[in-house]
Amino acid sequence: MTCPIDSNPIDEALKAAKRPSEETFAVGVDVGGTKIETVLVDATGMVLADVRVPARRGGDNVIDDIARTVREVAGDHLNELAVVGVGTPGQVDSEHGVVRNVVNLDIDTLELGEKGSKILGVPVRVENDVNAAAVGAAALLGTPQKGAVAFLNFGTGLAAGIIIDGHLQHGYSGSAGEIGHIPIDPNQLPCPCGQHGCLETICSGASVGRLWTHGNPPMPDLIRQARAGNEEAIAVLAKVTHAIVDAMQIVAQSIDPSVIIFGGGMAKTGEPLVEVTREEIARREASCPFLTTLNLGDRIRLAPVDQPVGAVGAALAALQA
Amino acid sequence: MTCPIDSNPIDEALKAAKRPSEETFAVGVDVGGTKIETVLVDATGMVLADVRVPARRGGDNVIDDIARTVREVAGDHLNELAVVGVGTPGQVDSEHGVVRNVVNLDIDTLELGEKGSKILGVPVRVENDVNAAAVGAAALLGTPQKGAVAFLNFGTGLAAGIIIDGHLQHGYSGSAGEIGHIPIDPNQLPCPCGQHGCLETICSGASVGRLWTHGNPPMPDLIRQARAGNEEAIAVLAKVTHAIVDAMQIVAQSIDPSVIIFGGGMAKTGEPLVEVTREEIARREASCPFLTTLNLGDRIRLAPVDQPVGAVGAALAALQA
Repeated sequence: MTCPIDSNPIDEALKAAKRPSEETFAVGVDVGGTKIETVLVDATGMVLADVRVPARRGGDNVIDDIARTVREVAGDHLNELAVVGVGTPGQVDSEHGVVRNVVNLDIDTLELGEKGSKILGVPVRVENDVNAAAVGAAALLGTPQKGAVAFLNFGTGLAAGIIIDGHLQHGYSGSAGEIGHIPIDPNQLPCPCGQHGCLETICSGASVGRLWTHGNPPMPDLIRQARAGNEEAIAVLAKVTHAIVDAMQIVAQSIDPSVIIFGGGMAKTGEPLVEVTREEIARREASCPFLTTLNLGDRIRLAPVDQPVGAVGAALAALQA
Repeated sequence: MTCPIDSNPIDEALKAAKRPSEETFAVGVDVGGTKIETVLVDATGMVLADVRVPARRGGDNVIDDIARTVREVAGDHLNELAVVGVGTPGQVDSEHGVVRNVVNLDIDTLELGEKGSKILGVPVRVENDVNAAAVGAAALLGTPQKGAVAFLNFGTGLAAGIIIDGHLQHGYSGSAGEIGHIPIDPNQLPCPCGQHGCLETICSGASVGRLWTHGNPPMPDLIRQARAGNEEAIAVLAKVTHAIVDAMQIVAQSIDPSVIIFGGGMAKTGEPLVEVTREEIARREASCPFLTTLNLGDRIRLAPVDQPVGAVGAALAALQA
């Protein structure tokens, strides 16, 4: 599926730009378990071209699909790109451009940065998919450049992307934002990581799907059923919102971001998810004046659902790096 | 109590400095519940003079004691100071130099920055005491300038100071580092803040004093008794180290600091505290390969106990601001 943009988007952009020689273009690629989405953007993150193709398994196929779609969106201007950024699941070593353990795509170890750069003749930088989505969502929502922004990705697992003063945080061991494996949920469910009570055993898209099997996607149905008075739904929803607000307090009371973006599949639930989260925040605020001063409910924003957040973010993160 | 340094420490420093005109000096003041400590430092945090006086209650007395000790350490060179930094307990609005609710010193609201600047004729900047201690400890320990450093202050309460790329983090609402009131401790003790299970209900100096009343200070005695096989001590120590490692995982998996400094009164326990914390980390690592990769035990450093960490940090934080 290709956006209805002509095959020379940079030509068009150069025509439109007042100072064409100073304009910067980059390509961002969002590698997912089922599809690969590739966009051409300018330095502000504006999408000039967009291509989506089904993902194929295996490292060679992934590199082939990335190269093909990058060429498609860049047209004749491939060599004018400042950089290609790739956001991918798995364990990502951004510094060396190496990706490990992408189970859904049968990838054990892939030197994506080096191989991609050789094939395309353009620097290819690799980023964790949640971090890339954080950068993309922050840019598309126009969050403040100064101070901290947190992106909570409620996907298969739970992880956060942390941006401070416009810079994505990786941390000392590449574990910045790995809040899903903080073992503090009171239900103490076992986690595949080996701990008990990890936040993501309750508040991730996959976990909600295990806790609530009556609807697909589960979260909108869970909220509807709880609203309708279903006792089981009320109990499950209480667990989930409890863990979501624990996650919010963890980021708010460690880095105190001005904006907390909800992203990932579960965030597509939209406003109803924000509403039930705000109800749990209000319940806690009722007994805690300190929490009231934090005004957490007002900090929530939903990641844009109809825009290529991950691909745009991969491009912008690569431009920043 | 005055350090045996002559009354013109800047004179001496100027004589010793190769490029005297470029040397920067600042004064830092650590306002505590029982004493006020004031130091003259150079831009590296080296202490050139140090004065300690008993703290007197009331805003006017506090300002008077600050001004008096600043003049004492600066000597004739007061007007050559770049800045005076004050670290204080209570709610601190660094931007406006206002301090509120310093219960131990009978201060309701004090415009410390403005009043101090007028009296001294030098800019006076005010900082939260934990943040100031974080900056001081990081400087005195020589932690890396790049990346994140976390300072866990186990004092009356529990709070963290977060430094990223050499910059102290305040956050959007001034709540960066307020991890003590994250309500995730499984014992769910009531907290004066209105929540239940706040981390500081278990892992702060004051909380350990409530949980273990058999020794003073309680933490070294608690560890000794647990080591000797006292069942009650073993149970209390397990609660405390559990909460300490929860606090460590929260900072490690949100901002991923290269160094986690233990400070505050309880950290004066020294190596035995580090040992029991590492034992709890090892217990968790035994079932969780992910946690093993974080190597949290190796990141622990103890804040210097024989140096004026808070006062040095107040000066350096003011220089940075």
